[in-house]
Amino acid sequence: MSYSPLIDDLIDALRCLPGVGVKSAQRMTFQLLERNRPGAARLATALSKAAEHVGHCTSCRTLTENEQCFICADKRRDQQTICVVESPADVVAFEQSGDYKGLYFVLMGHLSPIDGIGPAEIGIDRLLQRSAELSISELILATNPTVEGEATAYYITEQMRSRGIAVSRIAHGVPLGGELEYVDSGTLAHALKGRRPID
Amino acid sequence: MSYSPLIDDLIDALRCLPGVGVKSAQRMTFQLLERNRPGAARLATALSKAAEHVGHCTSCRTLTENEQCFICADKRRDQQTICVVESPADVVAFEQSGDYKGLYFVLMGHLSPIDGIGPAEIGIDRLLQRSAELSISELILATNPTVEGEATAYYITEQMRSRGIAVSRIAHGVPLGGELEYVDSGTLAHALKGRRPID
Repeated sequence: MSYSPLIDDLIDALRCLPGVGVKSAQRMTFQLLERNRPGAARLATALSKAAEHVGHCTSCRTLTENEQCFICADKRRDQQTICVVESPADVVAFEQSGDYKGLYFVLMGHLSPIDGIGPAEIGIDRLLQRSAELSISELILATNPTVEGEATAYYITEQMRSRGIAVSRIAHGVPLGGELEYVDSGTLAHALKGRRPID
Repeated sequence: MSYSPLIDDLIDALRCLPGVGVKSAQRMTFQLLERNRPGAARLATALSKAAEHVGHCTSCRTLTENEQCFICADKRRDQQTICVVESPADVVAFEQSGDYKGLYFVLMGHLSPIDGIGPAEIGIDRLLQRSAELSISELILATNPTVEGEATAYYITEQMRSRGIAVSRIAHGVPLGGELEYVDSGTLAHALKGRRPID
């Protein structure tokens, strides 16, 4: 690098964003400085405010700047059901589908012993405690259908069963609008095994 | 969007970066808040400092926080030659090649009448003035080999010729290490037309 120090600093700092290498960081820097200084200033403010104030919801562990996220704080939600997801983005995806009225619990990751992520890191204690507090009737597991997601779901199932809480897993199969011919074989096998009789 | 306000703000602000859509902005936000808060704080500082202090070099128009960029300020550089490029990144590319010891002039764009970018916007006045001040012996045109870059080179050539300044254009042809079979036909035609006798 051999721009002036402030420009080098900015290029370097932009590289902490996932998926941004030197060339993209350079392009972003010039775009911001040449065409969008208000955008740069706004981004700087948003970053420092979020980094300073955003923490975790004390009930469901999702990211929020409040004590409780707006879903946990909403007493009209069904307090008897908890849906367990891996990330805040999954919560938004479910909310956009509009069909779920219960609460969530956000693991902020999945079990991954190789990276040192065990039950404590994904907040299993808090999940058990919360399930007991609310004396929930059902726990829905919506971790990702990956090896780690399945292992996490299995672990949580074991923990819940020993406490007599009903656990379910979201259905995996052919996505709506998907064409069978392009669906991978693992998904097809799942769809076949999970077939249901037509009434 | 339906995260908490500070998170929504950050996702929205990140979208001002070129090539960043909603999904990438979301991923960047979670990555920064979950794993790299120091990085987020550092980026915020770098952005606001750069947006506030970086301006243009009074001699060559490149981006710098100083009155003059370090190349224009370096009196050991050959003051008789100016290389005209479109962006600060081009200056860095030439400096990395290490072969050029003259000065630069950065247009910060190219002529593009359809976008309202005329000679005034790319600083042609300043270029003419600077050429006269230094009474340069050669002006090297290194605008991009695109339609707009060529038009800009042509325009500058006309302006310089009428003032009796020698103008040259960098060579276009097959890049080193390139395989002929994968080089586009326009470049090949250029390479053929620009062939030179071997001594």
